[in-house]
Amino acid sequence: MRAARFHGKEDLRVEEVPEPSPGPGQVKLRTAFTGICGSDLHYYFCPESLPFDLDNPHPLTGAQLPQTLGHEFAGTVVEVGEGVNGVRVGDRGAVYPMCVSCGECTPCRRGLPFICRLMGSLGATAPGGGLSEFVTFDASLLHVLPENVDLRMGALVEPMAVGWHAVERSGVEAGGTALVAGAGPIGIGSWFALKARGVDRVLVSEPNPERRAAVAALGATVVDPANEDLAAAVAELTDGEGVDAAVDAAGAGAAVSSAVAGLVPGGRLVVAGFYEQPAEIQPTHLMMAETEIVGAVGYSAEEFDAVITAMGRGQYDTTGWVQEMAFDELHDALHSLRNGVGNKILIRNS
Amino acid sequence: MRAARFHGKEDLRVEEVPEPSPGPGQVKLRTAFTGICGSDLHYYFCPESLPFDLDNPHPLTGAQLPQTLGHEFAGTVVEVGEGVNGVRVGDRGAVYPMCVSCGECTPCRRGLPFICRLMGSLGATAPGGGLSEFVTFDASLLHVLPENVDLRMGALVEPMAVGWHAVERSGVEAGGTALVAGAGPIGIGSWFALKARGVDRVLVSEPNPERRAAVAALGATVVDPANEDLAAAVAELTDGEGVDAAVDAAGAGAAVSSAVAGLVPGGRLVVAGFYEQPAEIQPTHLMMAETEIVGAVGYSAEEFDAVITAMGRGQYDTTGWVQEMAFDELHDALHSLRNGVGNKILIRNS
Ligand SMILES: [Zn+2]
Ligand SMILES: [Zn+2]
Ligand SMILES: [Zn+2]
Ligand SMILES: [Zn+2]
Repeated sequence: MRAARFHGKEDLRVEEVPEPSPGPGQVKLRTAFTGICGSDLHYYFCPESLPFDLDNPHPLTGAQLPQTLGHEFAGTVVEVGEGVNGVRVGDRGAVYPMCVSCGECTPCRRGLPFICRLMGSLGATAPGGGLSEFVTFDASLLHVLPENVDLRMGALVEPMAVGWHAVERSGVEAGGTALVAGAGPIGIGSWFALKARGVDRVLVSEPNPERRAAVAALGATVVDPANEDLAAAVAELTDGEGVDAAVDAAGAGAAVSSAVAGLVPGGRLVVAGFYEQPAEIQPTHLMMAETEIVGAVGYSAEEFDAVITAMGRGQYDTTGWVQEMAFDELHDALHSLRNGVGNKILIRNS
Repeated sequence: MRAARFHGKEDLRVEEVPEPSPGPGQVKLRTAFTGICGSDLHYYFCPESLPFDLDNPHPLTGAQLPQTLGHEFAGTVVEVGEGVNGVRVGDRGAVYPMCVSCGECTPCRRGLPFICRLMGSLGATAPGGGLSEFVTFDASLLHVLPENVDLRMGALVEPMAVGWHAVERSGVEAGGTALVAGAGPIGIGSWFALKARGVDRVLVSEPNPERRAAVAALGATVVDPANEDLAAAVAELTDGEGVDAAVDAAGAGAAVSSAVAGLVPGGRLVVAGFYEQPAEIQPTHLMMAETEIVGAVGYSAEEFDAVITAMGRGQYDTTGWVQEMAFDELHDALHSLRNGVGNKILIRNS
């Protein structure tokens, strides 16, 4: 079968590899769509910055180079291994990629297995990934999609779960107000998650005109933080009070400090964007208003399911921010995202 | 009677003023000791930075210049007004200074009356203060001291409540680990609060040798962040895991970033120090470890009481960090603190 395997920096090869066979407890999925994520770009363009070593076998999963990429994918079950109950051939599902955590490291013991120091994740640190025709994995990782959620939408569950988790971490309640900085996939996922939980007054701040237009077309109130007055827009949205919650999915610039400044007293900013540079905060502002900044990464299996349920209710829409590309355009997809062109790209696996 | 009244920048005069008489519901206290606080220094040296205007009467309390200072004080009731129940002449107590909040501003409506935008506080934005022989105030503000807590200790309830609240905000539990940055009154208050709630493994980071020695003499494990390896000390304290909570009562330098770096995944830093400069954070570290930074200021009446209860259990000790000065040394006290000499200074009111 065909698989896109990472051999090292800027070396991703589409190769013929043996088709995997499901072991006991596993299922074999024919993949349909696989999303390209910022962390795939990290693999491709700067693997030296990854917090693990692929030259040696992963201590829990045995994964090592070459590694098949793709951790955002959905498909159809074509075979089930021995002892699998509850999943049948023909089931369509999205895959929770974090297949193993160590159970012993500090994050694991503190109930944060999704930041396990030895995380094994399909398409990253466990054998197999969504950028291949077939993948096998533990049946429990398959989250079956409702009838009305197609496989294209299914491949978006993973990135949408990142935004869902960020919104969970914000603690905002129905009827509250929010600011989302950045309208990339995590920002858009946060926007959908906010709407899904009844937070209707949401401002999305995004300097890129295409991304801003896309989220505006979905119904968001938008602001260009580079050329408009973000503070004034927050004040207008909230009658001068400040937002209950902010999600920073921008990863650059003044997003952190302007989001903190836009919070209501006691409000909370969730940092969900990947920053390469440090950011400046004014600790006294945090203190005097008892505001909060918290990090969010990953998501639980429950949050993954919550996204699927919301998709089943029609609360997600791919118009304007999701683009399909063919498998043989994979390299173009990586370079295009690296250059800031496009938003979420789904690779068609067949 | 004698009172220290603030007339304007660097103009604090000890004057004869009429003795106040308790109105209905009020008590009249003969003050015993009054602490000098960082916010008193703000009044004296840079009133232009205060978030309110004392040239015009305060909208809720009518306070205006000249304002008697002193919001950390304890004394003995010498008279009670009409309709006062539950407080008697001869009662010894500490005074919760935040006498009025508006009930209507955003913080008030969000359950944060201690950051009310129109806060009236004795010794600051309400008539009367601890730096006078007598003060009158609403009887409900008097928190009676147990037999075994003297008035000198009573004057420390207020600053200790600031540290207590910071520790409450940290969420740390008995048996956990903590870092306290800064061994000024708030840092020391945080240290006592941590010990009182059963957090025994606490590291105190303080560059000033006198302050460091004082808190070490109380039993704290200390580190000099300027000349020693703070990260190594945190690792040693916590078997390499990082602290569950940190309280930043330093207000300067790299305290915020080094405290964040010392947190366990999911851990929380409480900013309780007043910063004049911005601080740098690495948002990606917050994100990848799901750590948190939250502000803390003020305290509730319940927290004020919790400190008094802990004092009654012998959980506070003034050795080495509390210094008494006479009323006519008040100006020396302000200048000495401004120059970083001394720690908590209590003025003897008689
Ligand atoms: Zn991803
Ligand atoms: Zn682990
Ligand atoms: Zn004070
Ligand atoms: Zn108020």
